[in-house]
Amino acid sequence: MSMVSEAVRWQDQKLWLLDQRLLPHEEAYSAIETLDDAIENIKRLSVRGAPAIGIAAAYALCVSARRYAGQEDFSQRLNADFERLVAARPTAVNLRWAATKARDAGINAELGHALEAMVQEAESIHADDRIACRRIGEAGLSVLRELTPQSDGTIGLITHCNAGALAVSELGTATAPMYLAHAAGQRLHVYADETRPLWQGARLTAWELDQAGIPVTVLCDNAAASLLATGKVQAAIVGTDRVAANGDVANKIGTFPLAMACQHFGIPFYVACPASTFDSATQAGADIPIEHRGAEEVIGSVGAKVDVYNPAFDITPASMVSAFLTDRGVLRPPFADSLKLLDP
Amino acid sequence: MSMVSEAVRWQDQKLWLLDQRLLPHEEAYSAIETLDDAIENIKRLSVRGAPAIGIAAAYALCVSARRYAGQEDFSQRLNADFERLVAARPTAVNLRWAATKARDAGINAELGHALEAMVQEAESIHADDRIACRRIGEAGLSVLRELTPQSDGTIGLITHCNAGALAVSELGTATAPMYLAHAAGQRLHVYADETRPLWQGARLTAWELDQAGIPVTVLCDNAAASLLATGKVQAAIVGTDRVAANGDVANKIGTFPLAMACQHFGIPFYVACPASTFDSATQAGADIPIEHRGAEEVIGSVGAKVDVYNPAFDITPASMVSAFLTDRGVLRPPFADSLKLLDP
Repeated sequence: MSMVSEAVRWQDQKLWLLDQRLLPHEEAYSAIETLDDAIENIKRLSVRGAPAIGIAAAYALCVSARRYAGQEDFSQRLNADFERLVAARPTAVNLRWAATKARDAGINAELGHALEAMVQEAESIHADDRIACRRIGEAGLSVLRELTPQSDGTIGLITHCNAGALAVSELGTATAPMYLAHAAGQRLHVYADETRPLWQGARLTAWELDQAGIPVTVLCDNAAASLLATGKVQAAIVGTDRVAANGDVANKIGTFPLAMACQHFGIPFYVACPASTFDSATQAGADIPIEHRGAEEVIGSVGAKVDVYNPAFDITPASMVSAFLTDRGVLRPPFADSLKLLDP
Repeated sequence: MSMVSEAVRWQDQKLWLLDQRLLPHEEAYSAIETLDDAIENIKRLSVRGAPAIGIAAAYALCVSARRYAGQEDFSQRLNADFERLVAARPTAVNLRWAATKARDAGINAELGHALEAMVQEAESIHADDRIACRRIGEAGLSVLRELTPQSDGTIGLITHCNAGALAVSELGTATAPMYLAHAAGQRLHVYADETRPLWQGARLTAWELDQAGIPVTVLCDNAAASLLATGKVQAAIVGTDRVAANGDVANKIGTFPLAMACQHFGIPFYVACPASTFDSATQAGADIPIEHRGAEEVIGSVGAKVDVYNPAFDITPASMVSAFLTDRGVLRPPFADSLKLLDP
């Protein structure tokens, strides 16, 4: 249904990544031949979005493991690769989750079948992600039906960063309800925060929704509160990189002020994500490590030479989340109870 | 005390404007020879900041009036110029206030002395603004003394856009307490929102504070809420383009979400401005016209081709303002009472 290129592909026993830094100007795939390549691409954000990073990481371990498959020190080398890979970005939990599954598949496989088992596991993570996105979309559809549209029937939605097909697979997470509602004939208008400092909203979300024929308007992150005051937005839907056991949400910097503005205006704030994003081992948002990135991302466009504060993520308190839209359905407060449904 | 170039100069019977679009890379002044020149410079923001626009507007009328001084249709032409000038930017009240004073000085002057009276009035507005900034700074000092510094004695302040020397004269408005506190030996650290879409914080505020030797850190507007959560900020101080009779504040887009975050964390939010910024004729924030600007400002850096929502200002409700720092002292809630002190 989404008409958007996939962020991650496995083809000819190679990992291919769509270089998202070049969008919307160019659609180019690079073949990832080594673990260093993969780590470099994850760090510089040519692949991004928690689930897509997870899928890419699982395939990246396969790429690397091919070099020492069948060798005596296979498990040892695989573990060393695993540790380097999961250190690439600290905030998203999916990276570690998917890499762990791929590694374990290799280590637990029969002699001579490790690589095959790892690729199968990675492909299964990828396929499960597509299914999860569709289910997230269905959960989203059910909450969109609760909203009162504007007088012309339009439902206005706001999102931050890109939790779309480019960040996940096929339907995306935050965008999945949009794609499904649009396909079902619901009139939508999506407002995409530009998402400083790396413009994922202006570059990626606007591009992929436009490709799918969904009307989209870009705004500066700092204009979202004013927009909400106009009544043109009925709900916010965002993705997340990690949800703590108490329901606190780590997501792209700027999510927290959007949630705050939604709370101020009584507008529902939904977080869309697969069950793999919930991290029951992390008690609260304060326990989630926040990646800080370089000054150049912020002041590069201006050319100023000054000190910079550039956290890549923020923590939205659970109290500001109206519901989680997941592949296991809609989870509502109190989250201490509802999140337990996700326990294996 | 401020080591920063003046935004507006009157020299050799000419109006000179520092082209702020070129900062921090280049300090260049342009001579304004016609009203069209002045309007063009105001619209494209080479001069910006409510008080500086007012001062420039008063001088601009002088520049234009020279062409028809002493002629029979003087008043008529001056009025026509006045109307064109005040339409250049709709939100700031100082533009109309200062232009009205300059026009009235011309119309009420004795025959043959109109131009001289207008220049005198403009220079007096300019001089009064310098004094007002100093008084605003003193009002600010008194509220800074109420704050509990961090353990190392530092007071962290956050500001949005540029309400500094570049927007006003000499000490600026929001920056005046910073300059005075710094001069008095108070250890400060100022956080400057980059201020999308036109980067006034990253380009102008960071530059002028750095020139004055005040430690400054730039951050994306959407990271302010996260920063406040760290405890590194003891207060916010911003400027304003117009304050309604009920205390609602129009200021650069992004001010409202900053105020919201301050309220969330119980951090004082101060608005610094001269009495001329209070508009008793406007009942509430909803009555203040908000200028909407072009898409290119927002998506120019990205090169995307999409619909854009780009209001230049937002309205911060009076309930989120801890106090106004003015040339007539500190005005505290309830503002319905305290703002009456400003009535002539």
